[in-house]
Amino acid sequence: MNNTFLKACRGEKTGYTPVWLMRQAGRYLPQYKKVRAKVDFLTLCKTPELAAEVTIQPVDILKVDAAILFSDILIPTETMGMKLEFSESKGPILYEPIRDEASIDKLRDLKPDEDLPFVLETIKILLKKLKVPLIGFSGAPFTLATYMIEGGSTKNFLNTKKMMYQSPVLFSKLMEKMTDTVIRYLQLQINAGVHAVQIFDSWAGTLSPYDFEKFALPHVKKIISVLKNSKYKNRNQELKNIPIIYFAFNSSGMLKLVKQSGADVFGIDWRIEISDAVDMLGSDNAVQGNLDPCILFGRKGLIKERVEHILNGAKSAKGHIFNLGHGILPETPVDNAIAMVDYVHELSSKKGEH
Amino acid sequence: MNNTFLKACRGEKTGYTPVWLMRQAGRYLPQYKKVRAKVDFLTLCKTPELAAEVTIQPVDILKVDAAILFSDILIPTETMGMKLEFSESKGPILYEPIRDEASIDKLRDLKPDEDLPFVLETIKILLKKLKVPLIGFSGAPFTLATYMIEGGSTKNFLNTKKMMYQSPVLFSKLMEKMTDTVIRYLQLQINAGVHAVQIFDSWAGTLSPYDFEKFALPHVKKIISVLKNSKYKNRNQELKNIPIIYFAFNSSGMLKLVKQSGADVFGIDWRIEISDAVDMLGSDNAVQGNLDPCILFGRKGLIKERVEHILNGAKSAKGHIFNLGHGILPETPVDNAIAMVDYVHELSSKKGEH
Repeated sequence: MNNTFLKACRGEKTGYTPVWLMRQAGRYLPQYKKVRAKVDFLTLCKTPELAAEVTIQPVDILKVDAAILFSDILIPTETMGMKLEFSESKGPILYEPIRDEASIDKLRDLKPDEDLPFVLETIKILLKKLKVPLIGFSGAPFTLATYMIEGGSTKNFLNTKKMMYQSPVLFSKLMEKMTDTVIRYLQLQINAGVHAVQIFDSWAGTLSPYDFEKFALPHVKKIISVLKNSKYKNRNQELKNIPIIYFAFNSSGMLKLVKQSGADVFGIDWRIEISDAVDMLGSDNAVQGNLDPCILFGRKGLIKERVEHILNGAKSAKGHIFNLGHGILPETPVDNAIAMVDYVHELSSKKGEH
Repeated sequence: MNNTFLKACRGEKTGYTPVWLMRQAGRYLPQYKKVRAKVDFLTLCKTPELAAEVTIQPVDILKVDAAILFSDILIPTETMGMKLEFSESKGPILYEPIRDEASIDKLRDLKPDEDLPFVLETIKILLKKLKVPLIGFSGAPFTLATYMIEGGSTKNFLNTKKMMYQSPVLFSKLMEKMTDTVIRYLQLQINAGVHAVQIFDSWAGTLSPYDFEKFALPHVKKIISVLKNSKYKNRNQELKNIPIIYFAFNSSGMLKLVKQSGADVFGIDWRIEISDAVDMLGSDNAVQGNLDPCILFGRKGLIKERVEHILNGAKSAKGHIFNLGHGILPETPVDNAIAMVDYVHELSSKKGEH
């Protein structure tokens, strides 16, 4: 297996900078669209052969150094009893959003040994076929809670913040339940054999540092601490320390706090120079990022220039995994995504810096 | 006139911390809704008596230390020849969005002496009636350009960035035209007598620092430099130095660059501790901010605690104007907004720090 990605996560020397793209399996790929034409999004997530197929596609097409399980962060909320739908126009919808204690009490606990058999099966297929590490993932408790409280996407997160500010005990109860869910969900994936996990905190950046520290960070800390201290089945010594990536989107103003989560790797969006992020996070962690996904709509020369700028900026990090600063956009020209991956490999090998 | 706001902008000692709220005239006030029920939004902006009336309302109701001209950042784009509409559901719509050179050439230059007579008239009425300073404002060129290119609000700013990356010369041409517009528009307001101006760069934060420095910042620098070096009619010595506030929303990761704009005061959103923002901006400028607007949905005790936290955090700034980190939300309880203003006044006088 190509171990470059895992080595970079651990801050070990590598021959080049590994790269993968958030949402690398998805609507910008004709091959994905062909599979997706046959089934709806949720069915795709829950059909192991198909989920595995689209997980592998970008590894073959883009030559990225890691695969990420094809799924959605909201899958566990459905397992907990909420009705989940993906609407082409509105995005995710969670029916009967959580607004009171009764609806929190109704949520059932995740049972790792019974629930989500399709996740286990997808991972099993992938581990047989992949020549690169497989990343498992989960949403962070705060991000999952926003969807559950708002009932879908939102602009101002007003219902979430109303619960936080007006009913902090209730909000805490939901967050604790979601923390347990995330722990069980990631343990399930690690037991099944994923090589690393990423925690997506897509909406952490809607919080002030004050609120992030009070309402969201303690739960992420707990998850990472429990995962680091758990025993896993069937894992040999080399794989015992599963790298944990924490991606708190839009958190440039509070990286000092983000660092306290205890993750091994920090995902960085494009709103900060990666060199500044490394300065703020310190040199004892790896970083992942941080190209603006829109750069992939520019000419190849521009893409190359920006790839080089980021590679240079991340020089002082303990390890660097190249990635976009957010998910790849559906309209992205595939050629440009391929070119970007090539530039990362080519420019970082020349430099021989990692 | 109560000069506390202007003194704080200039970093002079004040008896208490002045405060105003972005969008303080607006839908959360029953008095505003009563006026608005009679006319549509654009008509309200363009009817001097009504625009002045809603500008004054929050000064009387909330006891804020400054008023801001009631208008919209997109008004000058209409004067330049674009068809502008405000839709209740979709927000602002600009028809025939700018995508090529011909549509840029078609934009007419703002003629300060002929255009926008309603703005002059509104300012004239306000200067007679107000007992607090009047803030004029404009959108920044980049923010205005995004609306003109996208045709309204957008999630990923893809059309804007496509033009930036694929046709940088074209994009520059539009930005230069908008820079001229903003200069003329703000000069017009200053000549008419406003006491300070704020440049709203609501979408600067969608840019990476690299792109902000290359595509947006030079134009803001130019505006501020021209405004600082212009001669204005009918202004006495005391008013010659009009404070310029630059509010680059969601720019926590690039405050070092934002500082280079040369503004006197920097608006700070809630995504960073104001003490960290002051550290990054240095102590030779004033700061304005930075309460999460959603805090106004919490209990009074919570509001007080957070006001105090921000007042303490801004202690080391050369000057501090208290504000929200973004516009006040339409659903905000008026009582809580009043309480917030009271807490700012009360807690900052007790401390006697400014």
